[in-house]
Amino acid sequence: MSVNPRDELVFLPLGGSGEIGMNLNLYGFGPPERRKWIMVDLGITFGDEMIPGVDIVMPDIRFIAERRKDLLGIVLTHAHEDHIGAVPHLWPLLRCPMYATPFTAHLIRAKLDEADINAKVTEIPLNGSFDLGPFSIELITLTHSIPEPNAVAIRTPLGTILNTGDWKIDPAPMVGEVTDEAALRRLGDEGVLAMTCDSTNVFVPGRAGSEGEVRGSLAKLIKSRQGRRIAVTAFASNVARLETVALAAYDAGRSVALVGRSMRRMVAAAQATGYLTELPPFVNEEQAGMLPPENAVYLCTGSQGEQGSALARIAVGEHRSAPLESGDVVIFSSRVIPGNEKKVGAMQNALAARGVEIVTDQDHLVHVSGHPCRDELADMYRWVRPKVAIPVHGELRHMMEHKRFALSLQVPEAIVAPNGSMLKLAPGPAAIIDEAPSGRVHMDGKVPVAEGDGLARARRSLSYAGFAGVTVIIDKKGRPVTSPSVQTEGIPETVVAALREAADHAARSARLDDEEEAAERIRRAVRREAQVSWGKRPVVRVDIVRI
Amino acid sequence: MSVNPRDELVFLPLGGSGEIGMNLNLYGFGPPERRKWIMVDLGITFGDEMIPGVDIVMPDIRFIAERRKDLLGIVLTHAHEDHIGAVPHLWPLLRCPMYATPFTAHLIRAKLDEADINAKVTEIPLNGSFDLGPFSIELITLTHSIPEPNAVAIRTPLGTILNTGDWKIDPAPMVGEVTDEAALRRLGDEGVLAMTCDSTNVFVPGRAGSEGEVRGSLAKLIKSRQGRRIAVTAFASNVARLETVALAAYDAGRSVALVGRSMRRMVAAAQATGYLTELPPFVNEEQAGMLPPENAVYLCTGSQGEQGSALARIAVGEHRSAPLESGDVVIFSSRVIPGNEKKVGAMQNALAARGVEIVTDQDHLVHVSGHPCRDELADMYRWVRPKVAIPVHGELRHMMEHKRFALSLQVPEAIVAPNGSMLKLAPGPAAIIDEAPSGRVHMDGKVPVAEGDGLARARRSLSYAGFAGVTVIIDKKGRPVTSPSVQTEGIPETVVAALREAADHAARSARLDDEEEAAERIRRAVRREAQVSWGKRPVVRVDIVRI
Repeated sequence: MSVNPRDELVFLPLGGSGEIGMNLNLYGFGPPERRKWIMVDLGITFGDEMIPGVDIVMPDIRFIAERRKDLLGIVLTHAHEDHIGAVPHLWPLLRCPMYATPFTAHLIRAKLDEADINAKVTEIPLNGSFDLGPFSIELITLTHSIPEPNAVAIRTPLGTILNTGDWKIDPAPMVGEVTDEAALRRLGDEGVLAMTCDSTNVFVPGRAGSEGEVRGSLAKLIKSRQGRRIAVTAFASNVARLETVALAAYDAGRSVALVGRSMRRMVAAAQATGYLTELPPFVNEEQAGMLPPENAVYLCTGSQGEQGSALARIAVGEHRSAPLESGDVVIFSSRVIPGNEKKVGAMQNALAARGVEIVTDQDHLVHVSGHPCRDELADMYRWVRPKVAIPVHGELRHMMEHKRFALSLQVPEAIVAPNGSMLKLAPGPAAIIDEAPSGRVHMDGKVPVAEGDGLARARRSLSYAGFAGVTVIIDKKGRPVTSPSVQTEGIPETVVAALREAADHAARSARLDDEEEAAERIRRAVRREAQVSWGKRPVVRVDIVRI
Repeated sequence: MSVNPRDELVFLPLGGSGEIGMNLNLYGFGPPERRKWIMVDLGITFGDEMIPGVDIVMPDIRFIAERRKDLLGIVLTHAHEDHIGAVPHLWPLLRCPMYATPFTAHLIRAKLDEADINAKVTEIPLNGSFDLGPFSIELITLTHSIPEPNAVAIRTPLGTILNTGDWKIDPAPMVGEVTDEAALRRLGDEGVLAMTCDSTNVFVPGRAGSEGEVRGSLAKLIKSRQGRRIAVTAFASNVARLETVALAAYDAGRSVALVGRSMRRMVAAAQATGYLTELPPFVNEEQAGMLPPENAVYLCTGSQGEQGSALARIAVGEHRSAPLESGDVVIFSSRVIPGNEKKVGAMQNALAARGVEIVTDQDHLVHVSGHPCRDELADMYRWVRPKVAIPVHGELRHMMEHKRFALSLQVPEAIVAPNGSMLKLAPGPAAIIDEAPSGRVHMDGKVPVAEGDGLARARRSLSYAGFAGVTVIIDKKGRPVTSPSVQTEGIPETVVAALREAADHAARSARLDDEEEAAERIRRAVRREAQVSWGKRPVVRVDIVRI
């Protein structure tokens, strides 16, 4: 393919650069007015206490939705929610082909089915290749905490980019192959212009550790707790870990019951695509409680203390079929995702109150991370030797440190390009040349709401100081017909009484012919009274109804 | 003092047992109907996202307030907020003498002054003794992360209790004396019935580490960052750490500016009571920015990312007198208190965006804990040899593990007694014999609200799905006079339109002669419509006004 002198190769992240979550990387090729695009990943972020009432956050894809005719395809690197979670929500705005390896494709199809969306996901074999217009794409299998994590090598007439996706180096991953070092070295020999690379663990020295070591440790641990029920909680998508737990259990003469919907779902997906097929059958959730304690392992959802999850219900004694008693053991074969510390702590307190022994990665080797620590990053840069390092999959502090680290490894150039940065990679020196619209969209109930609309922020204000709504009814002459109706929520009773009086007084003394001004006066009077009697200012709305 | 056969010695925690925060331990002696009490500590807990709009949480002290005539005094072990913070709020309900060592007394008096409360704090010298009715009290100086942490030895005719307060063992505490091992061994020789002991770090193996080591490490670190401004953030009450930073700075030819109100306040308190008096003078906050970068150390508040704190303002470039630029360094000489991870992360991202280097206890020895790890706990039990171990200062999981650990150290008995448990220690075997009213009181603005009132919970509901207030105006015949007034907050615009219509329709079709029933029907119709059009159910209030 010949290169037009006006052709450019650009990188544009719309998610995941400046945050951990909702990954969305765009790569563009061609002259600005006829540029073709491919997308790598289309993920979500889960909500938190700063955006109450919002469970799911998605990238703002306006930029690419407006150019969807030029979007040649979406490559999904692996099946974690921060990489595929937005597909059912946003694909209808894009309607382009999707590409993934079998396990990932299986899970995406399940999501599309559930959302009643008819879209095609083309299955690419592991280490397969395919072309999308000017982009020649090769998948390279890496290791992570889910089956089939793919790096995406994107060859273009102006150079090659390696999009690592999420990865680690594990000499004994137990499920899947060892990281394909040879393929990465070969790519490096061929010449790599730029690498967009996982920054999650850039502050962590050494290596993430191997699933093989966890397997040995968990086997010993489960053997050592004879005669007691054991529950293990892990991320359901960590199929290698599920296998680890199952083998350790069987080795100790125990059966494994799958407890929790997403655990059952993920095991079914794994088995449908050729994983976990050599294991003895799992026990039904309904039969879990019938296993003699000394023969039971419950493999549970709920490692993050999620409300309603299997372990959360077990902890408070509300799980019908999987009871735990004093002396039983819960193993947290997982880490606590930042922000979930209190929820997990509360669940552990409930377990402790029942006399259950709690084992975590603080005291035993029961978990390893799926992201590369510093020595692994150094290996990757040594193999791939990109001219430009582009940190992604990190908050700003991770990306800045990743940049410093890459430069210390003698990568010639490292550029931090937060979401919305249009980074030109070729021709000429790499540089941010433009800003594309980007941002976050909240799934607020079933209504998508732009973060900038401030709806969640408004509700946060309600959570601090409550709400007072005043309705003043006036007659045709502008005189109050009765005391105002005052509706409040989240305000102490004593204060409410004072607010009613203030509203009544203000309504009587306001000049009600200018309704807007009167409403504002009453609003201020009520807020002032709240400040005096409570020390806080609720949200106050005033409506004047003329009858 | 002779023992009446009906005398009992009891322990009753009203705070801090089952949580980390708001410590309040009661010790009682005498027959049930004429029991005398002493209180050790009267602390607060800070609010969190689960109780929005509440900054301060206090123990419910009904039990002892009703018996305040029998409360002989309050001993305050040290000046951390979780031990003295509730004094200005709750002392007026108790009005009994208070006892503390000089530094703690100084800070309590400042609190009382600020709250305009006239109360006496009796100063007890370090390692001093005094009597309160049947209780003979001896203070034993330990080590912690604030000056003058005291264990309280309480001798009674039925036996001796050691209330450890917060402590660690530090062979080089830098400020204050080394843990008084001899006094503890002497007490052990004399015989100790029970020890109420700090559980914070019971899951952490080894020892907390020494301030002396931090001093060496920080000195090296500050020397190594030549030519750049350095900001250090630490807990202001950690006076030894402030001295560490100051000495490291002076050693590197730098001056130290105190930045942030509580930093200045704590230094003043320390100097007024004889600490930090050998240091060169600190630079004024106003002059901080005038120091040449190579000569500047800012000692800042804000280690937890607190909104409006010195470092939070510096991070976003809004601090007038203490600027940081690309290449400058911030050292977090502190840990992140669980729950503050996101706030601290956001502040670090803002610093990273300015090109500031961030150093934390993840990468350098810049902080040690003030609470005992397992080897220190083992030492303490070896010295004091109590008959009964009573874990306090911990969540349930910490207390349960502490119990297991104490038993493994051959302490004959260990009892977990959560807040409100009346634990009889003598005569006879130790046992929980009763339940006292206990709980949490929120300072909601300036109004104390019992947690059970659900006010904060009500506001949390608002934060999930907002508020809709409907006012229906009807005439004397019960017919709607106009469309209902609908006030909403935190609900998407499209949904609000649907809710208005639903309210209007429901008001027209309701039988309005039974106002209560009609209001409930309209409320349900509006909630139903919200569920349909939004997938969420806001708080809905309906008022019917007859004119």
